[in-house]
Amino acid sequence: MNFDIALALDLIGVFFFALSGSLLAARKGFDVVGSLLLGSLVGLGGGTVRDVIINDGPPAAFSNPMYLIPPIAAAVLVFFLYQSVDARGNLLTVFDALGLGLFCVTGTVKAVNAGLNPVSAILLGVTTAVGGGLLRDITANEVPKLFDNRDIYAVPAFVGAGLTTLLLELHVLNLYTGTSTAILVFALRMISWHFHWHVPLAVHRRQRRGAKAS
Amino acid sequence: MNFDIALALDLIGVFFFALSGSLLAARKGFDVVGSLLLGSLVGLGGGTVRDVIINDGPPAAFSNPMYLIPPIAAAVLVFFLYQSVDARGNLLTVFDALGLGLFCVTGTVKAVNAGLNPVSAILLGVTTAVGGGLLRDITANEVPKLFDNRDIYAVPAFVGAGLTTLLLELHVLNLYTGTSTAILVFALRMISWHFHWHVPLAVHRRQRRGAKAS
Amino acid sequence: MNFDIALALDLIGVFFFALSGSLLAARKGFDVVGSLLLGSLVGLGGGTVRDVIINDGPPAAFSNPMYLIPPIAAAVLVFFLYQSVDARGNLLTVFDALGLGLFCVTGTVKAVNAGLNPVSAILLGVTTAVGGGLLRDITANEVPKLFDNRDIYAVPAFVGAGLTTLLLELHVLNLYTGTSTAILVFALRMISWHFHWHVPLAVHRRQRRGAKAS
Repeated sequence: MNFDIALALDLIGVFFFALSGSLLAARKGFDVVGSLLLGSLVGLGGGTVRDVIINDGPPAAFSNPMYLIPPIAAAVLVFFLYQSVDARGNLLTVFDALGLGLFCVTGTVKAVNAGLNPVSAILLGVTTAVGGGLLRDITANEVPKLFDNRDIYAVPAFVGAGLTTLLLELHVLNLYTGTSTAILVFALRMISWHFHWHVPLAVHRRQRRGAKAS
Repeated sequence: MNFDIALALDLIGVFFFALSGSLLAARKGFDVVGSLLLGSLVGLGGGTVRDVIINDGPPAAFSNPMYLIPPIAAAVLVFFLYQSVDARGNLLTVFDALGLGLFCVTGTVKAVNAGLNPVSAILLGVTTAVGGGLLRDITANEVPKLFDNRDIYAVPAFVGAGLTTLLLELHVLNLYTGTSTAILVFALRMISWHFHWHVPLAVHRRQRRGAKAS
Repeated sequence: MNFDIALALDLIGVFFFALSGSLLAARKGFDVVGSLLLGSLVGLGGGTVRDVIINDGPPAAFSNPMYLIPPIAAAVLVFFLYQSVDARGNLLTVFDALGLGLFCVTGTVKAVNAGLNPVSAILLGVTTAVGGGLLRDITANEVPKLFDNRDIYAVPAFVGAGLTTLLLELHVLNLYTGTSTAILVFALRMISWHFHWHVPLAVHRRQRRGAKAS
């Protein structure tokens, strides 16, 4: 995957995550500057954490002003179109899932290019993908989607980061395979959300009587 | 602006933000060590985030022990004087605004000196200025001042960071123009707080009937 | 203290902190992936903040895959054994205190080895020790143990980081003195927790009548 394609996918991911942040700001009654800032935090937070961990110069969001365009566009779109479209409140989850799909691909690619070993690259790809949304939910004092036990969130990101590492190792990562991976992650996340696919709870229950967690 | 002036303004900013942290700790019933730690987090957090993003060696707070003096002084002052002065509870907002004014100037100067482009320098200056207070409010489980829609908080920081960049470009930033910028930001923040100056909400309302955000 | 011993103590600290994270996840009703992620955040968060601040290449957790073993082991242990052992709910505090003891030693050693001055090394050691637990409590929306005024939390970490710096200066830090320091910190924390040892509140009360903090 060449640099321009990776940058384009990254910017689109920023846009989707920023939309999720601005939508949450709208629901919470923030003002338009708060919408821009929460959108920026969500859109740029995961990638900034990634670049700080890679430790190779200032993060992309602080060296390439192009990264500021998606959050501005997201805040403007939410400002003018929110009333028309967000009737059911599902859009936030959709945009969040689109960002998740794109970021676990672009985050993993950046990690491998920075010389991290495959295991660490997967971990950093997942961190990039879930980081922005976690910052969003903590800042807005919501229960993090990441820890919602009614569906899966990190599992699709692990699948996407793992697949991306595999495609890179096989030298077959390109626009098509990369986008397909992102779409697969998005689909997995949305299907699990719709059908309440979930994984077992943190505690194995051997018996049913009186086992209430304190 | 030479190095000593920038350092002095930065340390004064740390002191004001640390005061806001220790005051909040006092209100929340924390102990004196919690007061010192929350003061340190607020006073040193924004600058540490800034220096981590600039990525040029350990952050100032971890390489120059002088940065530890303002948080200690703030915790001591709050310990002995809190009962005498904080009758109306407005002091936290005042100290926070003083820190905001100083940090958007010193943060922008550091960003430009580190070689960031003007747009990124403004972004990093604003991040420095609002970062400590955001960490304070999230840690103490308060609604972040940054997202309070009854007045403006980030807008004065943007104005200050923009003006600082302009003064630097024109080679006229010095103790007087820098301090004036900080005072302007402080005044803008306090006036907006007093008179409830605010910006539009995140969502444009085209009609007044029944448009309650979900 | 040679490198292997420092690494071993660090990994054991990661394991204890990860256990505290997975235990909290179990209590909060998270799923097993959430347990693994919260355990990883707590176990690896403090050290990652430390390494990002030291600014010398990617953090240990993202360059040495061995760091992923303790969080996985912790999540598996909690999954199978939680029902059998956590009757009284004190285990979280015990594991957290064990992590605190080990991390204030290993964090300080890493800081000194990275060339920080003694004062900054103590500060970074304490940050490493309290960072993971603070991230845990903020993420799970609990009152941070760090700010609980019924016992002491940061004070033992300061004692441990200070002692470690002293032992390093005297060239007598080794497996035995290092472990002893960690055990001392653990004991101090547990004793303060059991007997409600505490420090004065953030505000000095000169009189008893009507002095209710607003």
